[in-house]
Amino acid sequence: MAQALVLEEKHKLALREIALPEDLGPDDVRIEIDTVGICGSDVHYYTHGKIGPFVVTAPMVLGHEASGTVRAVGAEVTHLAPGDRVCMEPGIPDPRSKASKLGIYNVDPAVRFWATPPIHGCLTPSVIHPAAYTYKLPDSVSFAEGAMVEPFAIGMQAAARARITPGDIALVTGAGPIGIMVALAALAGGCAEVYITDVVDEKLAIAGGYDNVHPINVTKTDAARTLAEATGGWGADVVFECAGAPASIQTALEAAAPGGCVVWVGMPVDPVPVDIVLAQSKELRMETVFRYANVYDRAIALIGSGKVDLKPLISDTFAFADSIAAFDRAVEARPTDVKIQISLGTPG
Amino acid sequence: MAQALVLEEKHKLALREIALPEDLGPDDVRIEIDTVGICGSDVHYYTHGKIGPFVVTAPMVLGHEASGTVRAVGAEVTHLAPGDRVCMEPGIPDPRSKASKLGIYNVDPAVRFWATPPIHGCLTPSVIHPAAYTYKLPDSVSFAEGAMVEPFAIGMQAAARARITPGDIALVTGAGPIGIMVALAALAGGCAEVYITDVVDEKLAIAGGYDNVHPINVTKTDAARTLAEATGGWGADVVFECAGAPASIQTALEAAAPGGCVVWVGMPVDPVPVDIVLAQSKELRMETVFRYANVYDRAIALIGSGKVDLKPLISDTFAFADSIAAFDRAVEARPTDVKIQISLGTPG
Amino acid sequence: MAQALVLEEKHKLALREIALPEDLGPDDVRIEIDTVGICGSDVHYYTHGKIGPFVVTAPMVLGHEASGTVRAVGAEVTHLAPGDRVCMEPGIPDPRSKASKLGIYNVDPAVRFWATPPIHGCLTPSVIHPAAYTYKLPDSVSFAEGAMVEPFAIGMQAAARARITPGDIALVTGAGPIGIMVALAALAGGCAEVYITDVVDEKLAIAGGYDNVHPINVTKTDAARTLAEATGGWGADVVFECAGAPASIQTALEAAAPGGCVVWVGMPVDPVPVDIVLAQSKELRMETVFRYANVYDRAIALIGSGKVDLKPLISDTFAFADSIAAFDRAVEARPTDVKIQISLGTPG
Amino acid sequence: MAQALVLEEKHKLALREIALPEDLGPDDVRIEIDTVGICGSDVHYYTHGKIGPFVVTAPMVLGHEASGTVRAVGAEVTHLAPGDRVCMEPGIPDPRSKASKLGIYNVDPAVRFWATPPIHGCLTPSVIHPAAYTYKLPDSVSFAEGAMVEPFAIGMQAAARARITPGDIALVTGAGPIGIMVALAALAGGCAEVYITDVVDEKLAIAGGYDNVHPINVTKTDAARTLAEATGGWGADVVFECAGAPASIQTALEAAAPGGCVVWVGMPVDPVPVDIVLAQSKELRMETVFRYANVYDRAIALIGSGKVDLKPLISDTFAFADSIAAFDRAVEARPTDVKIQISLGTPG
Repeated sequence: MAQALVLEEKHKLALREIALPEDLGPDDVRIEIDTVGICGSDVHYYTHGKIGPFVVTAPMVLGHEASGTVRAVGAEVTHLAPGDRVCMEPGIPDPRSKASKLGIYNVDPAVRFWATPPIHGCLTPSVIHPAAYTYKLPDSVSFAEGAMVEPFAIGMQAAARARITPGDIALVTGAGPIGIMVALAALAGGCAEVYITDVVDEKLAIAGGYDNVHPINVTKTDAARTLAEATGGWGADVVFECAGAPASIQTALEAAAPGGCVVWVGMPVDPVPVDIVLAQSKELRMETVFRYANVYDRAIALIGSGKVDLKPLISDTFAFADSIAAFDRAVEARPTDVKIQISLGTPG
Repeated sequence: MAQALVLEEKHKLALREIALPEDLGPDDVRIEIDTVGICGSDVHYYTHGKIGPFVVTAPMVLGHEASGTVRAVGAEVTHLAPGDRVCMEPGIPDPRSKASKLGIYNVDPAVRFWATPPIHGCLTPSVIHPAAYTYKLPDSVSFAEGAMVEPFAIGMQAAARARITPGDIALVTGAGPIGIMVALAALAGGCAEVYITDVVDEKLAIAGGYDNVHPINVTKTDAARTLAEATGGWGADVVFECAGAPASIQTALEAAAPGGCVVWVGMPVDPVPVDIVLAQSKELRMETVFRYANVYDRAIALIGSGKVDLKPLISDTFAFADSIAAFDRAVEARPTDVKIQISLGTPG
Repeated sequence: MAQALVLEEKHKLALREIALPEDLGPDDVRIEIDTVGICGSDVHYYTHGKIGPFVVTAPMVLGHEASGTVRAVGAEVTHLAPGDRVCMEPGIPDPRSKASKLGIYNVDPAVRFWATPPIHGCLTPSVIHPAAYTYKLPDSVSFAEGAMVEPFAIGMQAAARARITPGDIALVTGAGPIGIMVALAALAGGCAEVYITDVVDEKLAIAGGYDNVHPINVTKTDAARTLAEATGGWGADVVFECAGAPASIQTALEAAAPGGCVVWVGMPVDPVPVDIVLAQSKELRMETVFRYANVYDRAIALIGSGKVDLKPLISDTFAFADSIAAFDRAVEARPTDVKIQISLGTPG
Repeated sequence: MAQALVLEEKHKLALREIALPEDLGPDDVRIEIDTVGICGSDVHYYTHGKIGPFVVTAPMVLGHEASGTVRAVGAEVTHLAPGDRVCMEPGIPDPRSKASKLGIYNVDPAVRFWATPPIHGCLTPSVIHPAAYTYKLPDSVSFAEGAMVEPFAIGMQAAARARITPGDIALVTGAGPIGIMVALAALAGGCAEVYITDVVDEKLAIAGGYDNVHPINVTKTDAARTLAEATGGWGADVVFECAGAPASIQTALEAAAPGGCVVWVGMPVDPVPVDIVLAQSKELRMETVFRYANVYDRAIALIGSGKVDLKPLISDTFAFADSIAAFDRAVEARPTDVKIQISLGTPG
């Protein structure tokens, strides 16, 4: 039995004892959790009790953005040792599947993912995790930053799928947490300039605080025209659609350059009208993103090198004992909040 | 002045004299036309007077699928000589444009394309054309086949954009002329098996006459399920959507395998609802096709080698003097017709 | 204890009892072996006792090109059942490794590969193998063909790495077993024509027996010039270097087209002078091949569809009891021999 | 007649009047030159009179790294106007060639390249140049930086050919001007960290002055081992070989990770032994670089954004009247010199 933040059912959280796996397999490590970020999906399970086909039908521990310290390693683990500071990839695929063999383990239908029913998350002081999905943090990366690797990994996946050519000009539609992560990954990943849209000035201000990130408030300015002007009429080499709204989807297609790429990151609730003929007229390539695979070490390298600074995106940090308050703050969705974290570690 | 098949206005064709360019520039060749195929776009200009933003406002010569014989070459032409049997790429880009410099000259906004207003087509006994867009036919390729290179080039472009991995299993939705061209290009281009859908049995019978092309009548059989069964539950590695209908667009996304590719070839008249989240759940790549670039020599090589046999797709051939009858036959859209051609050459 | 063809030491084979693994793990299958092909590496261990760093220091069962019938399945195996006719991928990686996670499990340093010291091969009536590396054969593929999947997989890997564009013209240097496999994979994988070189007419005759495979005896004909002539001076889009000799390596670079690809398949014993500046002047891409990953199902699909016919390459078949004679025949290296197989199955 | 720096023959430079093209074609611009950098190839023609097959047999104006101001535009030029500050791509291909149509105009055999015999270079106050190969500089990029775009473009081409995945760890062998350009392009183009080797500490000090560039003096430290240690034993995702020496070529293959990429940038005088089997054992991809195509606008974007700072690499600037002294300084090849420039513009 361990203390954990448990979603009992929709709208009902409890910080209480719950039975969690304790057996350390030969390929596993035991990790003392230090920091856990709150993701929009955690909040959505809290407020709606489900996401699409995934329904919370039994108490479930929340949290999947985590960092911590290795405290024990299984018999066959060689690349980690007790004391290592780490962060963890929350989805564990079946290594025997065709998807895993192909290296696209993120789309393995058998993936078990933290805090996706019925799998428990990691908002608890200690977890067992496969060493193969546990990544060492360099000294230059704090636990707080380590817990940002998971959301940043989505940006990295989007940047990798875009196959950026060095010096590309990019547009990101939507300046929410994922949009900003994507913008930073795109810049660090080779873009020269990133334009980012939103309708909320506070969000744009946070994004625009980074060098070479140019905010566009679409209630006042046409994004496609802005990109055309910035590129001599050519358009954006890459567009990352992160808002998931019909208007931004149309903007994505309009702003893209001939032969350009649109990456569909945002997840519209329902099918959305897409102007396929417009995409064809520029022979666009369109990529989609589902979580991430093989990007954690790359994300850590970019954070560790200082090329990506995620610290300004950590809006507030709560103690583990105040986890429910942390979630209620996340539910508020303040326009100035990007990421709320919960600290389980010793203050200091 | 030269004899030509002129679209005077919507619904009104005339075989008459018209003034056409006669100056042979240093980079040009003069070609005696032998065979011209009738494309759906030719028919559409005839029946509707326009395609999207392209409106016939003045008499225009039709035809853009052509083969013939070089009769004269400009001063700087080195790779062609009088007597060469050739076929011609109907779109001429601006070589100074950014798109042309990138090798994607098909998406150069300045492209001048035969029989796209206001540019005259090639249904006339002799044309002037840039040598750089004129391709020699080997002896093994007839003029009739040479005039099939243009529509087959669309299939080639789709196959190239798909980046087929050898042994892929493909689905083509829609067994019209383009769907069949795509199926043949996909098979010759590396696929092991191609499944093709339609609602018309006659069309499916023509497609299914080729080895390794498997027809699916979607009024009776679920295409996504068929592909799943044929692949151990995995799905189609590549789907070529060639029907442009909402139902087939949804089928394309459903039938694709995790990490697979959907190529949007069909051109729906209006924006169509697309289930982006479904595409994301399998992290699909989606490619689009706009005409073709750099595929004519490849298309000719595959036809010349015998790997692709387009002869069964030539449904009927009319004499130049009967061009209007040929168009009226094409307007009929008989389910057993794939391609109607007009022969201008000396019979023999 | 089981009967097996054991390499006791260099030059010394025995068909005798030996202790082999018998435990069927939850992810394993037990396969009754039907056919095993003899590979050049098997022969090399027999004649030299080693290949590079891999030295036979203890008795080792030979053979890694195998097909057979599943007789038992482990508790967690779902995609195979007793009675299934199968072939097997002989290399088993560590699924937790970085290479495996990336989908390039062939370059996982921890791979355990049949008949590579100290791992036993499969020339024995029954083997235990992971289900994930065991592939079902369709009814249209015989056991003899099933045992050809392994060497053909190398050709498939080469074709996949080349990223063939449909209609490419290819050159293969060297018409040994691997050169022919590569030629067939390249043709099935999208090439329009394949030229193949050798100095032995018998080998060229076998290769040239296939449609669109054009033999070049380099003692009489210059391969680079032949390719230039066949392509209007452009050169081969892809060159697969399969001979591993200095002269063919130079030919590969000379014959390749601007922007073309050279795939290094042949394994020269020592470092070979490479004209890097020549490669740069055409900005060639050069790919290398190490065994294969994720191609078995594709190889089986192409054989099953009839696009690839490997039967003409099976030169002779010996009974299991005559395994040593089979190896001595393979040692002869007759110019008309491509593949010698050993049949363990009930003659049928 | 115009004043120009003329290489009369090997070892003999003159600043004198010479007849140069003066006709402004419809697609051309006339540019007043401001700054010209001295390239190693300029120096090599000065000291050796030839580079490989290119021999100086008649007086030739030197210089190909240039920036300036548009003073007149041809009748069909639309994207440039008098007064525009620009830099120029020195190689002009034949737009009708197969290579140009494919977008790889750098490997068009018909390219005419400044200061490559028999084509005059640009060390003269005014040149005529095709507008399509003339690129506007933003206000944030000085003329001195504009004249650095040409050498930086080689780095950009190398980075583009590498197909960097965001967060890659790279090794550059050789810290000469090109090695440093490549390192900066690789970092800006998506790498997290770049290690760079040389045997000269002064060169390494200049390279190491940039963030995330880590110098390795190979007379003291083993580069492959350093990369292995920095990557948990995995190796460099990308190696850019810029030294062209046998030892660094071997290091490149040793340091690369499984599935990694080696880009051959350095140009060894003679064929060099390459350990192909070592490359195969990791299934490396190897790319080559020949000048550049389609990277000028990307290079300018990265410089303009501040992501790439080339100013520290401009070691000294000479007046046009002192051009010969500038060349003699360049011949010195001081270890602390990266780039020597000649200023033709009005001081100030």
